[in-house]
Amino acid sequence: MIMEPLRPIIFHPHVPSIEYIEQTLLPDTCEIRTAECISDLADAIVRLGIRGAPALGCAGASGVALSALLTKEDSFPAYLKQVRSDADILKSTRPTAVNLFYGVDFVLNAVESALTIEEAKSRAVDAAREVIRSDSRTCHAIGKTGLSVIPYGARILTHCNAGALACAEWGTALGVVRTAHEAGKKVSVFSCETRPLLQGARLTTWELMRDGIDVTLITDSMAAVLMRKGKIDVVVVGADRIVSDAVFNKIGTYMHAVC
Amino acid sequence: MIMEPLRPIIFHPHVPSIEYIEQTLLPDTCEIRTAECISDLADAIVRLGIRGAPALGCAGASGVALSALLTKEDSFPAYLKQVRSDADILKSTRPTAVNLFYGVDFVLNAVESALTIEEAKSRAVDAAREVIRSDSRTCHAIGKTGLSVIPYGARILTHCNAGALACAEWGTALGVVRTAHEAGKKVSVFSCETRPLLQGARLTTWELMRDGIDVTLITDSMAAVLMRKGKIDVVVVGADRIVSDAVFNKIGTYMHAVC
Repeated sequence: MIMEPLRPIIFHPHVPSIEYIEQTLLPDTCEIRTAECISDLADAIVRLGIRGAPALGCAGASGVALSALLTKEDSFPAYLKQVRSDADILKSTRPTAVNLFYGVDFVLNAVESALTIEEAKSRAVDAAREVIRSDSRTCHAIGKTGLSVIPYGARILTHCNAGALACAEWGTALGVVRTAHEAGKKVSVFSCETRPLLQGARLTTWELMRDGIDVTLITDSMAAVLMRKGKIDVVVVGADRIVSDAVFNKIGTYMHAVC
Repeated sequence: MIMEPLRPIIFHPHVPSIEYIEQTLLPDTCEIRTAECISDLADAIVRLGIRGAPALGCAGASGVALSALLTKEDSFPAYLKQVRSDADILKSTRPTAVNLFYGVDFVLNAVESALTIEEAKSRAVDAAREVIRSDSRTCHAIGKTGLSVIPYGARILTHCNAGALACAEWGTALGVVRTAHEAGKKVSVFSCETRPLLQGARLTTWELMRDGIDVTLITDSMAAVLMRKGKIDVVVVGADRIVSDAVFNKIGTYMHAVC
């Protein structure tokens, strides 16, 4: 059985609308909701209905493209003013999310480089699709790169959700796990619950179970003991941000590095 | 203001009954319940209404004394049979709790060493009081011993609840904190929430706030980062059991030792 890839955000230019998985309801319910305007989308981001750095980039890009398609102004300056205003609304939803700003600005630049409204709409759709495709390519590349360090039968610890739900699809940390699973490496995952918001318990376990990958949920405080007992071979986690002398990720990641 | 010491279990021989704090309701409600028979008490232990190794010793001891006072048999053999049967019920509530077995057996031995029912009742009450007094003395001795390693202004990390609620009073790990506080050392405590049952979040924060000791609740996964940032001076935790080559305590304690 080949399952549909897990895509938390799908941009439909012809409707136009953005479908997204309402992540606050997982794992009990996988509800697909539709954002038909910018305020729907902004609300979803504020509520963490859409979350995860790369997914926020896709949401921001799709959102500006949606604005470009929905805006009814006749003059280009008025049209541009409206799209810029919608872009600002999207940026205000998560002021710390660098990817969100990147996605919004990438599509806004495409709109601003157009000479007519029709051209702006066309460029916006292309630019949003490029952000989404680019994230998908990145995740698969991370998976292929990570594959070499995952031994056969690896017992993999992960923290938070750096999976398909956090991206356009496939995932970053879980992209490595998926690629290894697909390559027949028979991996199993220990997912930390990830306090305080339980992204590991609610999201990571759900999406791995959906794809038939062996996963065991543990409390954050069990990880060190499992490592001490030799039950973890590899730790794979995402990173919110990487700078020259530090890696930033969800609280609790640091202890795995030390233990 | 001098507050009443926090005593989670009080044995009243003259009623007879055992009053206990129903710990499952903390921190929202501090409800004092009364066990008037062995099944009341056994139920409280099974539900974790009474928990903590030393407190279970006190509960076991008080329970056998309660049985000794309540049992109505006229012949000594029949009386002894009933008390032994109640002792077995108490032991079956938490088969892994060494202190519970110790408390039960200590008072049962006192009953068995008597020659008459009246003498058995008197010896049982004395023995139960001795278990409770002994635990109280031990906690204060731990506090005095630990005092020397707590610097002035110490920021102390603790895990789970090794406090008055887990003992006859005062506490083991929190006994050290209380003794330091009483000595004017101006300590502050970071309490791990302690997954999966939240004894740190529910019990430790409650009992420290009750006694006016500065306490900050953190998720278990924040502890390592606080240590990395130099914000923890001392870690004080209880121990469920100590053997020659290992210390056993609630899941999550190990990572504090490593980090």
